[in-house]
Amino acid sequence: MARHSKAAVVPKPNDPLVIKDIEIPELVPGSILLKVANAGVCGTDVHLWHGKLTGVPYPLILGHEVVGTVEDLGSGQTKDLDAGQIEIGDRVTFHDVTKTCYSCWNCLVAKAPTKCTNREVYGITRDSSKFPFLIGGYSEYMYLTPGTHMMSIPENVSFNGAISAGCALPTAVHAATRSPLTWGANVAVQGAGPVGLMIAMIAKVNGARTVTSIDQAPNRLELAEEFGATHTLNIREGTVEDRKKFLRDISNGHGPDIVYEATGAARAIPEGIELVREGGTYTICGQYTDSGTVEVRPHLMNRKHLDIRTVWGTETVHVYRAIKTIAENYDRFPFEKLVTHRFPLRDAQKALEAQEKLISIKAVIAPNG
Amino acid sequence: MARHSKAAVVPKPNDPLVIKDIEIPELVPGSILLKVANAGVCGTDVHLWHGKLTGVPYPLILGHEVVGTVEDLGSGQTKDLDAGQIEIGDRVTFHDVTKTCYSCWNCLVAKAPTKCTNREVYGITRDSSKFPFLIGGYSEYMYLTPGTHMMSIPENVSFNGAISAGCALPTAVHAATRSPLTWGANVAVQGAGPVGLMIAMIAKVNGARTVTSIDQAPNRLELAEEFGATHTLNIREGTVEDRKKFLRDISNGHGPDIVYEATGAARAIPEGIELVREGGTYTICGQYTDSGTVEVRPHLMNRKHLDIRTVWGTETVHVYRAIKTIAENYDRFPFEKLVTHRFPLRDAQKALEAQEKLISIKAVIAPNG
Amino acid sequence: MARHSKAAVVPKPNDPLVIKDIEIPELVPGSILLKVANAGVCGTDVHLWHGKLTGVPYPLILGHEVVGTVEDLGSGQTKDLDAGQIEIGDRVTFHDVTKTCYSCWNCLVAKAPTKCTNREVYGITRDSSKFPFLIGGYSEYMYLTPGTHMMSIPENVSFNGAISAGCALPTAVHAATRSPLTWGANVAVQGAGPVGLMIAMIAKVNGARTVTSIDQAPNRLELAEEFGATHTLNIREGTVEDRKKFLRDISNGHGPDIVYEATGAARAIPEGIELVREGGTYTICGQYTDSGTVEVRPHLMNRKHLDIRTVWGTETVHVYRAIKTIAENYDRFPFEKLVTHRFPLRDAQKALEAQEKLISIKAVIAPNG
Amino acid sequence: MARHSKAAVVPKPNDPLVIKDIEIPELVPGSILLKVANAGVCGTDVHLWHGKLTGVPYPLILGHEVVGTVEDLGSGQTKDLDAGQIEIGDRVTFHDVTKTCYSCWNCLVAKAPTKCTNREVYGITRDSSKFPFLIGGYSEYMYLTPGTHMMSIPENVSFNGAISAGCALPTAVHAATRSPLTWGANVAVQGAGPVGLMIAMIAKVNGARTVTSIDQAPNRLELAEEFGATHTLNIREGTVEDRKKFLRDISNGHGPDIVYEATGAARAIPEGIELVREGGTYTICGQYTDSGTVEVRPHLMNRKHLDIRTVWGTETVHVYRAIKTIAENYDRFPFEKLVTHRFPLRDAQKALEAQEKLISIKAVIAPNG
Repeated sequence: MARHSKAAVVPKPNDPLVIKDIEIPELVPGSILLKVANAGVCGTDVHLWHGKLTGVPYPLILGHEVVGTVEDLGSGQTKDLDAGQIEIGDRVTFHDVTKTCYSCWNCLVAKAPTKCTNREVYGITRDSSKFPFLIGGYSEYMYLTPGTHMMSIPENVSFNGAISAGCALPTAVHAATRSPLTWGANVAVQGAGPVGLMIAMIAKVNGARTVTSIDQAPNRLELAEEFGATHTLNIREGTVEDRKKFLRDISNGHGPDIVYEATGAARAIPEGIELVREGGTYTICGQYTDSGTVEVRPHLMNRKHLDIRTVWGTETVHVYRAIKTIAENYDRFPFEKLVTHRFPLRDAQKALEAQEKLISIKAVIAPNG
Repeated sequence: MARHSKAAVVPKPNDPLVIKDIEIPELVPGSILLKVANAGVCGTDVHLWHGKLTGVPYPLILGHEVVGTVEDLGSGQTKDLDAGQIEIGDRVTFHDVTKTCYSCWNCLVAKAPTKCTNREVYGITRDSSKFPFLIGGYSEYMYLTPGTHMMSIPENVSFNGAISAGCALPTAVHAATRSPLTWGANVAVQGAGPVGLMIAMIAKVNGARTVTSIDQAPNRLELAEEFGATHTLNIREGTVEDRKKFLRDISNGHGPDIVYEATGAARAIPEGIELVREGGTYTICGQYTDSGTVEVRPHLMNRKHLDIRTVWGTETVHVYRAIKTIAENYDRFPFEKLVTHRFPLRDAQKALEAQEKLISIKAVIAPNG
Repeated sequence: MARHSKAAVVPKPNDPLVIKDIEIPELVPGSILLKVANAGVCGTDVHLWHGKLTGVPYPLILGHEVVGTVEDLGSGQTKDLDAGQIEIGDRVTFHDVTKTCYSCWNCLVAKAPTKCTNREVYGITRDSSKFPFLIGGYSEYMYLTPGTHMMSIPENVSFNGAISAGCALPTAVHAATRSPLTWGANVAVQGAGPVGLMIAMIAKVNGARTVTSIDQAPNRLELAEEFGATHTLNIREGTVEDRKKFLRDISNGHGPDIVYEATGAARAIPEGIELVREGGTYTICGQYTDSGTVEVRPHLMNRKHLDIRTVWGTETVHVYRAIKTIAENYDRFPFEKLVTHRFPLRDAQKALEAQEKLISIKAVIAPNG
Repeated sequence: MARHSKAAVVPKPNDPLVIKDIEIPELVPGSILLKVANAGVCGTDVHLWHGKLTGVPYPLILGHEVVGTVEDLGSGQTKDLDAGQIEIGDRVTFHDVTKTCYSCWNCLVAKAPTKCTNREVYGITRDSSKFPFLIGGYSEYMYLTPGTHMMSIPENVSFNGAISAGCALPTAVHAATRSPLTWGANVAVQGAGPVGLMIAMIAKVNGARTVTSIDQAPNRLELAEEFGATHTLNIREGTVEDRKKFLRDISNGHGPDIVYEATGAARAIPEGIELVREGGTYTICGQYTDSGTVEVRPHLMNRKHLDIRTVWGTETVHVYRAIKTIAENYDRFPFEKLVTHRFPLRDAQKALEAQEKLISIKAVIAPNG
């Protein structure tokens, strides 16, 4: 039984990460000690390192997209969402939110649990100097407190193949379920990073007739084709009008029924409003960080009779469906290829830098080698 | 039986209106000759006079919000939407759209009939030099072609009381049905012109807990209170932050569940996004004409997890529900007070000018005195 | 500070209730000691007394519809759903479900928390011989465990006026939100017991054009009129065809848009299917106990192109909206009149018998006089 | 140019079909003369032959599922739903409803156009002794009146491959769009006739995780597997409880999210209610003819917290999506295999008898050989 865990700690914003040896606390009933296989390096991790999010405590152990093996269990039964018993040695992941309260007005009355006013997230909102200390995935072990929503990783899915279930795919699932996606739809996806790729994949699985991925990076657009895009458009070639015409031409003249935004760039918004067909749906899920303001034309929005849905955070259901979607479509799409870079724990700092420079599509830290 | 009709004709954009005497064509089967009681003067009429809408033919007889009496009927039976027989002498109104094709992709597949690609509108898209000539309400008589969707005006409703059913109230009905309005909701309405007033009224009828009207004209805000607003805010007093705080304070700290935009001003959009609560709905129906661009912050939109619905045009169902809503709530709200000015046909020109200067809330032309 | 509480205990099914003196346990952090003002006597309580529900432990203290005063608080802050601090002396109620797990598949994936597989209900599923003992409302005091969802009772609402928020009104709220209720609707309600009365009231508050209550008890139909019914029908007078015709005649020939079932009688179902208009919605919430089978005609169901929604249990949001609805409409409807009978704790047995014989509309037990 | 058309006429109910030679009327503007390739033999045709539908005029030419070639066009432009020009020689189909009025309350207010009170259907509700005479598909030529909603048959689809678009697949599309079908769903389909097969296919295209077809005919269940069923159940083997257990076992213990009924047998209804999971959706579209009453248990319906949707008729959108679905998935599913029998016009009588005895899955009449 492991008694200590090495972890990469952010002492305070912008300080270099420090590898520390942390004692593993006793397991309380219902808790789980997770041996981390992969911790995904998320763009948010870079922002956290730079101290750009408010309300975040330091020191902090980053890492909220985590897959691994159950090393030990507290007393009492712990079940996954299908009511299967969690056992030592199981390969698992979990919803990155350690606590959605299901007691506040947003959770219970507004039915917007991703806006829970008491939300806590592993690797983001918890102080690693306090119990249970091992609260992020950049660590050999994580201590998952009782009530963490666990998902078993199906046998046919590798740890690399499951990594998108940590953040990108649940976000894509959430976006998809906030829009009238149905078989035969013409879909466009702005952005071919992990979230955009996963949206393309879901649209394809859901029977879309066309799926057009839009990005500026040729390698991402190539990967989009492997994840279900029937067409790709590079925004460095051609104008908004060109793209609008292209999308109409491939959809019997109507334009895309749904446009998804997964770019992180404010300027994507007016383009998305242009691209979507009249009476269509524009689903925005890529504006997680503030990239400034942008000019829109309200008359155009109004005249097009649109539904515009914005999508914040993920619920457990989205992680659950993410895992299922990967497992059921594992032979169809190259989920493992999302992981383009792999770093040992001691290079966590380098992993953040690779992510910051957008060298990787998805980098992971593998704390146990 | 009338054989001629005086009508105010716009010869070409910006030319003064000319009163002409036009011969009434024979009534074909299913057609109706309407003796006009009131023709509402819509802001769009001013734009049409100035030639600001594309695809509009001239000469043109304005007037698409019309109530009147059936003067004569073509052969065959003509029924209203409740399958009641239309008879000579009946007080009626009609959907201003003379033709939604219910044959095109937008009508039948996208189920967005207000985006019908073959749409024609009385008083807007038809050439008054061609059969049936009398195609607008600034005229003693209108010739309603077969298939026009007719609504009987209930006995308890006067012609003045019915005028909002011509345009403002159906727009409000459409906006309301595009948002999750339900009893107990906290609602804010940007704008207290005819559309905004009618939205306030519907929210109240639908059991809203608070209805806050926001405008800059004190007389409009006073009228809003008569139409159901529980609170009013003058945008000339205080900041966006003040209004946001006020709206939270009256809703247990949560903010409005739904904000409706009915202003015509682009700058209302970023304010509306600020005001609506997290997870709420922002319904935009006031940007019918192009008032330019405005800066929005995509991150704020995304973080608030919003539904933003834009609302274009009206369907027959909205006019039907408008008439029913007026009749059922006639004692509760002062529908007749919406008509603040009344002009004879010869003063149609002056009516347009009064509307342009926003002197009136709703002016009507009464071609038959 | 109270140290003991008298409670009426059901020793085992069908045994007479016994008044016992029970020691009040120490208050753990987050718990609340409630001094019971009123405990509603629900039809389910009679079934529980007779041992008709499976999985119910005995001894049992009945009473899941409870209003009262906060006698004492465990350490730590306890908030109501609007994030207001709960203080000693506050008048409160709570969601009767002590525990919806928000961890199981039904809660999180199916989003059907009323089908939570770990659900526990005060006064129904907990054994009064185990901590915290005081788990039902037929008792001077109740011990509310941490996490119980609390609602403050507004100042303008008396304890009697709030009693419907315990069970009948949340059920009605749930039924209403499972159907496309909107202003101007024509609504029929089968049954004028507490649930049916509350549905009629909500339909009225929500702007229904007609609300027709259907029952066999004249006194209930009279009360229905006080709670918003615009029309009533006694099923002892006339046939299904008569009622169908009546409902069409008052709705321009179309029939009710929504029919709600709140009867408890299986035979109501085929009648409801007959009464609702083509394309309408039939919402079934009154079949909580098994009243046997009934014959339906599938072809008729299919031909009418219906939505049939069944409604099980209540969520916290429904109790929250119930309390708000009462407070906002307190002057409009006689909420206090629902309580027709009032019994001291020692007569709890008599209260059950009155309920069983349907003498009362709503009886309450007032354990503290 | 053809001047006459041979047609199989039903002189009156139960009389043998008579082959008549009928003069083709002049083509009015907007009309189309269709050279019939295949006319599907629908179960309804048998009922029509026996005079079992009310309000049907005789003599009658049967045939409402028709594909063919444009032989001639009236003057004026005729477009398909994608606004493509219809030309002589085009391979086309059309919505079997010749007239949905889009003027009545059901069409415009209730938005239930399949309940249009003025609905007319080719091959069913029109008298073949009156203009335009050639109103059914059991005929060399059909005369399609102006306004018939036309769909072009894509190049990759044969006439046999398109036949399901006539009735079975649009019904399946309608059923699918009346239920929350989404990728990853567990679906069960009662009945593996043409409608049930097409529902299975759509569920698969839409990314269902499991699709279980239930029938009693082994050949139909075999075909179901070719149309996407992942599992099949023969109701002659095992009990309802067995099937319920099977469906739970393949869905992580939860049971099917959606059950579709497409059997025509009343007894399917209580079984469907048993099979669907708690909180799931039961969609009934197979009870087009009256097969009597059946006993259901309202308490079970209520306790399961269900949505039950019934589905009547088809709209043009469903035919449009049917054609698109066939074309886009033509290589994936054996659409041509649905046509198991083919009859010349002179054997129309035999075709009805084959359908009545359920020998065929889908028989067609090929009037031009």
